[in-house]
Amino acid sequence: MKKYVIGIDYGTLSARGILIDSHSGQILSEVTFEYPHGVMSEHLPTGERLPPSYALQHPEDYLKALEFITRRLVTESGTSPESVVGIGIDFTSCTLLPIDEDGTPLCMREEYLRNKHAYVKLWKHHSAEKYASEITALARERGESFLDAYGGSVSCEWALPKILEILREAPEVYEAADRFIEAADWLSLVLTGKDSRSPAFAGYKWLWNSDSGYPCNDFLRAIDARLDGIVGTKIPNKVLSSGESAGTISHAGEALTGLSAGTAVASPMIDAHAAMPALGITDSGSLMMIIGTSTCHILNSHVGVNVPGICGYVRDGVIPGIYTYEAGQAGVGDIFDWFTRSCVPKSYIDEAREKGIGIHALLREKAEVLLPGESGLLALDWLSGNRSILVDYDLRGMILGMDLNTRPEEIYRALIEATAFGARVIVEQYEKSGIEIKRIVASGGIANKDSMMMQIYSDVLKREIEVSSYSQSGALGSAIYASVAAGEYPSLKAATESLSMKAGRIYTPKEESSAIYDELYSEYKRLHDYFGKENAVMKRLGEIKRTFVG
Amino acid sequence: MKKYVIGIDYGTLSARGILIDSHSGQILSEVTFEYPHGVMSEHLPTGERLPPSYALQHPEDYLKALEFITRRLVTESGTSPESVVGIGIDFTSCTLLPIDEDGTPLCMREEYLRNKHAYVKLWKHHSAEKYASEITALARERGESFLDAYGGSVSCEWALPKILEILREAPEVYEAADRFIEAADWLSLVLTGKDSRSPAFAGYKWLWNSDSGYPCNDFLRAIDARLDGIVGTKIPNKVLSSGESAGTISHAGEALTGLSAGTAVASPMIDAHAAMPALGITDSGSLMMIIGTSTCHILNSHVGVNVPGICGYVRDGVIPGIYTYEAGQAGVGDIFDWFTRSCVPKSYIDEAREKGIGIHALLREKAEVLLPGESGLLALDWLSGNRSILVDYDLRGMILGMDLNTRPEEIYRALIEATAFGARVIVEQYEKSGIEIKRIVASGGIANKDSMMMQIYSDVLKREIEVSSYSQSGALGSAIYASVAAGEYPSLKAATESLSMKAGRIYTPKEESSAIYDELYSEYKRLHDYFGKENAVMKRLGEIKRTFVG
Repeated sequence: MKKYVIGIDYGTLSARGILIDSHSGQILSEVTFEYPHGVMSEHLPTGERLPPSYALQHPEDYLKALEFITRRLVTESGTSPESVVGIGIDFTSCTLLPIDEDGTPLCMREEYLRNKHAYVKLWKHHSAEKYASEITALARERGESFLDAYGGSVSCEWALPKILEILREAPEVYEAADRFIEAADWLSLVLTGKDSRSPAFAGYKWLWNSDSGYPCNDFLRAIDARLDGIVGTKIPNKVLSSGESAGTISHAGEALTGLSAGTAVASPMIDAHAAMPALGITDSGSLMMIIGTSTCHILNSHVGVNVPGICGYVRDGVIPGIYTYEAGQAGVGDIFDWFTRSCVPKSYIDEAREKGIGIHALLREKAEVLLPGESGLLALDWLSGNRSILVDYDLRGMILGMDLNTRPEEIYRALIEATAFGARVIVEQYEKSGIEIKRIVASGGIANKDSMMMQIYSDVLKREIEVSSYSQSGALGSAIYASVAAGEYPSLKAATESLSMKAGRIYTPKEESSAIYDELYSEYKRLHDYFGKENAVMKRLGEIKRTFVG
Repeated sequence: MKKYVIGIDYGTLSARGILIDSHSGQILSEVTFEYPHGVMSEHLPTGERLPPSYALQHPEDYLKALEFITRRLVTESGTSPESVVGIGIDFTSCTLLPIDEDGTPLCMREEYLRNKHAYVKLWKHHSAEKYASEITALARERGESFLDAYGGSVSCEWALPKILEILREAPEVYEAADRFIEAADWLSLVLTGKDSRSPAFAGYKWLWNSDSGYPCNDFLRAIDARLDGIVGTKIPNKVLSSGESAGTISHAGEALTGLSAGTAVASPMIDAHAAMPALGITDSGSLMMIIGTSTCHILNSHVGVNVPGICGYVRDGVIPGIYTYEAGQAGVGDIFDWFTRSCVPKSYIDEAREKGIGIHALLREKAEVLLPGESGLLALDWLSGNRSILVDYDLRGMILGMDLNTRPEEIYRALIEATAFGARVIVEQYEKSGIEIKRIVASGGIANKDSMMMQIYSDVLKREIEVSSYSQSGALGSAIYASVAAGEYPSLKAATESLSMKAGRIYTPKEESSAIYDELYSEYKRLHDYFGKENAVMKRLGEIKRTFVG
């Protein structure tokens, strides 16, 4: 009998699942489920207004996605639940929530429906910036050893600032929380009935490492006396070992998903990391850029060093025996979406409709014929703040160089170029720290759809860029991890060799474009340093802005 | 028999005329004429593509406006041509053109139809920036005495850089030009048959003053040997005295306008200046801001001093015995127009249509409820460059502080605020030079229409702002000058007392808003100095951009 594995990739707006033959790698079915609540940044479902920089989600959406996707994958593939031997999940991160003793999210209990701090704080929930700064400052002052491994800063996207935000702003929620948990680990709990913590999330987002565990209680108590003893209670001490599975599907899990009790559940991965085996990357010196709503820059290396402004590096975090570094750009695709939603005139929308194409396609069509430097524009890609290498979520976007003839496609292209310059800052930072980059592989929705953008990236980075031909690399990677958890392969390397996708199109830099982009990049870098380090105008404007919303 | 006078205000996109009773001031008719060719910034009428920063006009439009407006004013008022005793004109400036011996514009001759340098160079034609820099540098090097009276810089909007652009880029047009002339003076020529030069234009835009005349031939020859002898040939030496009229209508002028030969023609005024008598301003210490496509800041004072970055000051230039200073913001209303044309999403256009209001009105409605600082945005209002106090037309716009929730009305308001901050820079520069400002009067299309904007100006400037209730103050001022030229009054002061409009609404600063705007202004000022003086990124981007268009 043939055996199958399922991978589900939980993204920002939807979850995508695939079911593959665990030996041939053949894809039998693919299913997508959009979250009914999406990202809540303005109001709770109950109508309460949210402050700026909020990004919440509803855990009910994750359950609905799980139920819908697993059942539909099996039906559409024509296989039986019994032939599915493993399931793997990857998830955005750090995306965390408070749960009660039974594992029920607090926001699903009547008494907390109207409390914004009871909901899932999505990775891009950025309102804990001041707590992140506080934690960073204290860790630096005390010389906490974990800090350097995380690029010297604690990001507001990570677990501790988010938990501190709850403690400080909603102590009643902190009190009521039996545990804080990553959404990914919560789904493991839903599937298996056991609370197990994946080392991927703990290592990259919870300041944990396999040698010394979480930050020490002394430090946590110094942040706030009420954090005393949190590790071992609200944050369980035990973390799975590298490669250990999360368990098997329970009877409750069977009832929800229709998969058989006893089916292997892989330890969940961070969404961006899951793509690496899918793209066949298990070697040192490969940089993978996953370009979507935001971009993750994930680099494998035999070398383990501290890189300032890089989010962190974890040995065995993705591939056994290899250090995997993670850096990121907090906003990429969502910047372009903001632009098309808020800044594109009616005549363009009408033109796209007449041509029967989307607005992004129309803008690309018009932007593609522009040459580098032709618009006179330069932008900073910080509409969601800067994750690497400035690690400052209070930074904001900027566009410069407009005149009265500036057209929408010119701004659109300048925003794309700005994200390419942002990527180059990261690549140069890795190299400056002595980590070699031999190969760049791009993946994610945008990398596949937008050849203009990939050419710009190649021209700006002055390197070849391989683009994976398959857009669901996260889900495929999760299926590969599932195949290892199910015992179908002896190692991740073996599973990867058998199941990964072959690279697709390769973009090669054009010399004349690169020459102009070198000039533009040096202007970008100067403004990057000016607004990132010298003139804190963006932060001061943000402070004034915050006085208006509670 | 009652006597009437006509004033015509030639603006950037249209000309507006009024006919008033020369004693009661009663307005009998008002007529507007939009230029068929508008502003040509992308193509010549013959299809030739234009380089960036070009803004040309077609003199045929001015003739059509003159014919249509004069005839229609008389018909609509029910008076007879014989009862019209004077006509006055005001015009944008420096708006110049090359003409042949007969006074025919070169661009209206078959052989020059396709030559961009044969057309009218509108005030905001900014492509002569490099010639302006060259002239400024040379004048500074030689210690030319005229320079300080013009704020230390020669603007690319003025006559000499525009003429030098023709000489250098189209020597055949320079050669063929019998004379270079302001569009306003050319209309005097059309009306009277005589080439007379108004001291207003010569004084503010042609580096002329009544004591020493135009810049000396030595200096002109040092700029370019081919300019040798230009004064006295292509630039007639003689300029009218202050208060002298341009002449009377000729038979050809009668045939065109329908007005009687012999009717008095006032010496034309710069459009912004013409508004002063219309608003009753003949005293020292009054600042008039004419807020339209661009803004002119015109200040009367008994004191005559050099103010760095201010365009110039001329004694008797507007009112006998008084120094009139002029400063300006190169882009104001046209920035908002650019925004509504290029950056407002379809949903807003649809909403405005449903509500039956214009897009500016809808944006104002949404922006009005925002509080200062609430958007987190800050902009630089340099989409057309900076006229005062940086005098640099290579500067460009900037918007800073966007996040993914930034809405169009927030950007719209930030652009309005940026123009208010730009106005404050000018007001502070006047005061720093010891020129007292006792009163601010605002006029122009925007001042009348946009109460939100005027309140913002009052809050930012921390002063009362009086707004004239009448939007056609330019045309009214020209009619007042016409009444003096026709001998209906012994002096401008007497005509002004009788014919000027009373001030309308007064805006008073709100303390809480001013406090926040003080903070935002200090951020604006820092970026103003950074991008204006320290980091020439905008100029470098402009240089790269210019390599793409010939």
